[in-house]
Amino acid sequence: MDDENTILQSGVQSEIELAPITRRYFAEITPPSLADNRGDVERLRQLLFPAFGNVHIPFRLMRNISMICRDANWRVTALLGQTGLGWELLDFEAGDTTGRHYGLAIDIGTTTVVASLLNMQTGACLGTVAEYNGQCVYGEDVLTRVFRALEPDGAPLLQQAVVSTINGLIKKLCARIEIENKEITAVVIGANTIMVHLLLGLDPSRICREPYIPVLNSTGFLRASDAGIKVFPDGVLYCLPSVGSYVGGDVIAGILVSGMHKRQEVSLLVDIGTNGEIILGNRDWLVACAGAAGPALEGGVVASGMRAEPGAVDEVHIDHNGVVRYHVIGGGKAAGICGSGLVDSLAEMLLAGIIDRCGRFVDNPCQSFIVVPASDSVNEKDIVITQTDIDNIMRTKGAVNAAVEVLLESIGCSMEEIRYFFAAGAFGKHLDIESAVTIGLYPDLPRERMIQLGNSSLEGARQALLSIDKIKEAEQITSKVTYFELNANQSFMNKFVGCKFFPHTNLEYYPTVRARLAERGLLQPALR
Amino acid sequence: MDDENTILQSGVQSEIELAPITRRYFAEITPPSLADNRGDVERLRQLLFPAFGNVHIPFRLMRNISMICRDANWRVTALLGQTGLGWELLDFEAGDTTGRHYGLAIDIGTTTVVASLLNMQTGACLGTVAEYNGQCVYGEDVLTRVFRALEPDGAPLLQQAVVSTINGLIKKLCARIEIENKEITAVVIGANTIMVHLLLGLDPSRICREPYIPVLNSTGFLRASDAGIKVFPDGVLYCLPSVGSYVGGDVIAGILVSGMHKRQEVSLLVDIGTNGEIILGNRDWLVACAGAAGPALEGGVVASGMRAEPGAVDEVHIDHNGVVRYHVIGGGKAAGICGSGLVDSLAEMLLAGIIDRCGRFVDNPCQSFIVVPASDSVNEKDIVITQTDIDNIMRTKGAVNAAVEVLLESIGCSMEEIRYFFAAGAFGKHLDIESAVTIGLYPDLPRERMIQLGNSSLEGARQALLSIDKIKEAEQITSKVTYFELNANQSFMNKFVGCKFFPHTNLEYYPTVRARLAERGLLQPALR
Repeated sequence: MDDENTILQSGVQSEIELAPITRRYFAEITPPSLADNRGDVERLRQLLFPAFGNVHIPFRLMRNISMICRDANWRVTALLGQTGLGWELLDFEAGDTTGRHYGLAIDIGTTTVVASLLNMQTGACLGTVAEYNGQCVYGEDVLTRVFRALEPDGAPLLQQAVVSTINGLIKKLCARIEIENKEITAVVIGANTIMVHLLLGLDPSRICREPYIPVLNSTGFLRASDAGIKVFPDGVLYCLPSVGSYVGGDVIAGILVSGMHKRQEVSLLVDIGTNGEIILGNRDWLVACAGAAGPALEGGVVASGMRAEPGAVDEVHIDHNGVVRYHVIGGGKAAGICGSGLVDSLAEMLLAGIIDRCGRFVDNPCQSFIVVPASDSVNEKDIVITQTDIDNIMRTKGAVNAAVEVLLESIGCSMEEIRYFFAAGAFGKHLDIESAVTIGLYPDLPRERMIQLGNSSLEGARQALLSIDKIKEAEQITSKVTYFELNANQSFMNKFVGCKFFPHTNLEYYPTVRARLAERGLLQPALR
Repeated sequence: MDDENTILQSGVQSEIELAPITRRYFAEITPPSLADNRGDVERLRQLLFPAFGNVHIPFRLMRNISMICRDANWRVTALLGQTGLGWELLDFEAGDTTGRHYGLAIDIGTTTVVASLLNMQTGACLGTVAEYNGQCVYGEDVLTRVFRALEPDGAPLLQQAVVSTINGLIKKLCARIEIENKEITAVVIGANTIMVHLLLGLDPSRICREPYIPVLNSTGFLRASDAGIKVFPDGVLYCLPSVGSYVGGDVIAGILVSGMHKRQEVSLLVDIGTNGEIILGNRDWLVACAGAAGPALEGGVVASGMRAEPGAVDEVHIDHNGVVRYHVIGGGKAAGICGSGLVDSLAEMLLAGIIDRCGRFVDNPCQSFIVVPASDSVNEKDIVITQTDIDNIMRTKGAVNAAVEVLLESIGCSMEEIRYFFAAGAFGKHLDIESAVTIGLYPDLPRERMIQLGNSSLEGARQALLSIDKIKEAEQITSKVTYFELNANQSFMNKFVGCKFFPHTNLEYYPTVRARLAERGLLQPALR
């Protein structure tokens, strides 16, 4: 994988005021004299005070400060890292080394790990690389990995797997940008709660059983060496904080990047990956819920499903004559269909009258629809959408609809009050908005108020790396989010059972879809 | 050595409000539920917040918190330590362990190391023990040790020597009080700058040559394991801070214990040990100077000199008939004379007219005075005071007088403005005030305003151990002290040369001594 693959790229990015979590500070220190006989450590401490307050100087560095100052003729660079309580001296070097100061933003997805190298002095992104998460060999889905982690020696194995992936990405970036890995002094991770636990070798067992309690929501500021990440060993490691077990740091990143927590109007944020998370709120309140809704959309379970990689059909169009056109990632023959191709297919099948609003095939004895005929397929087999595929998507979309309704109900807010919609996560960036609205996965809002955030987990990590204020903002978000546990929520189950229509039981909420269905004569007269 | 020997005991002690630098905090944590699904680490962090603010939780402890909480049925004890930036979690245990919480206050003298074990919950002192500083084998005086430390492998050798002494004292205290050494979670050291450097294995070379710069004045909060002190390894280690190279943490302790930094009136504090330090000041200003003035008084160089240990003559009285009476430490025959015995002898010789105010023998062709005849001496040799001994003391006292004058001059203050006098250090406690005034080592103030602080280095360490506020106070003191380097001070040299009279060139300053000399007919008519 590399950064040409757009699914790995950040989408929405915002300019932020640079206040990174590690700093290189160059100083020309006034040498001591009879009239100024402070100790060398005090001289440094007092020099740093105006910019950093009372800096913690660890013992291992105290030993060398005197020698370094004199060898460097009092021209020195201090490397400082944030501890959460203030600044700590991480390293101390002769001369001016401020020009070589790098940080890593990492999104650890269940499937893919993406890493961006940033210049911490300028904020510039110097490169982004991606690789499959090395944990995939221990299970495609998160639960399988958790169970594997609970076996003897499982936790170190799972940890080693993802850390190896990260260290491989670091090696690749360092080679490309021509820097040494020890020049990277800070790492920020955007990942869900289980991924963070597996990265740190923490026991994930209680996340998966009632009452679903993680070891931690916020790691605070750790050392890169705590996780075995091969950068400057005393470099700072921070993982974006989570709420409960199922609203992970990746989702908090999405909220942070969307800015929904600062708006007066109500926004809805949906992050559908292997899991689905839904956040509703504004600057005064935020409510959230989550569930394992995603696999159908990630291409894991559909008949011809595959990941969004070369050979996957990612766009589908059916014209007035029923002719299917499609796009294959990387060109050439199709090997299967990925999530966005699947949603496109369903939307087009609905608009073409091939399936009805209940998701049933109309006048089709085969109970399947051929997207790519065997002659154009790599495996010389038809690439099809089956009734099972449609039912899976209906369930996913129904779960999202039901969850949104539960959240609205919980806060006493109506559907009409939702003013902004954010699609978070890499999948959200790839999905065609019109298709997602057509099947009812997304709400039917004016399109200028529907924003695809792209890989907001990576973007949130980038912002946190470059700005302590963004970290504070992320932590404030977590303290504001109220989490609704759907696993034990009867109202959700009732609503979920009722959500059996494309795009929605109540077409009032979907004016543009209603118009298009009506245009094509696909609505019963009473609904026109 | 043990705590029966009063020279090792603290003198002035004050009640302080308990706010120790490590804390044990017991809590019954509300277990998690579906309605409260915070991570275990957050649950702990938020529980500690009201009492400790944002607590830093190190990674090594995060791993075990979940298990300990559940095993202990959510009844747990957190051990917290001060970092200077706030509180850090040092340990986390099942059940209520608050009853076992100990700290060590240590005075590291050039000759003697004294350690007190304190109950950190109640503030009670549970025992005090002392031992010769293991470094003595590498040199009696500080400079010899510094030179030894600069030889290859010298620093670790000197460090190991004093750390072994400390660990021996810890073993003794733990055995006596029946505790384990890992139950000691905090250590505070009162010591001069060189002793602190040698303890920590820091390079002391620049302390001894112009412009006399230590590696550090304040260690901040270190780990006991940084120095190899065998208590709880992550326990807090703090050394009282110094000013410049020659006003050490032991002297800052003296100021702290005296309270002179909080009085409106001007006080003079003198700490004479192997080195002599002099502090003048009040709540608005503090000026200090120091010099290697002490060896004569510590019994190191006089003809019959010895340390204040069993066999030493420590009190001397000469009656109207010239009959000498003396006291021997531990009883029995005398082996030599210690500092306090020497000062007593000189004062009595002056008042008996055996020496004159210039320190010269009057009508004595032998140029020596027998304190203990050979028949009463262990070695069957006369224990005598020689002209050289008298000259040495005259120089020491002259240096103190000159230094006080330099300080007074520097601040534009007169001798008459000195309202309080504090004698710091163990030696200061042992010395007879009347004798010290008679020879002019101490000023001639009303006796109720002359206070012997005893081992104020140990007492300062005790206060710092039990109170973060006292640590802040000590650090504020260092920031207020202006240090005068006498080594390069011409005014001091001029004054020193002029200070050749007992008790002082200007008898006006010594009204009680003048009266006693006059009473005995020992003053020239013009001075009566």
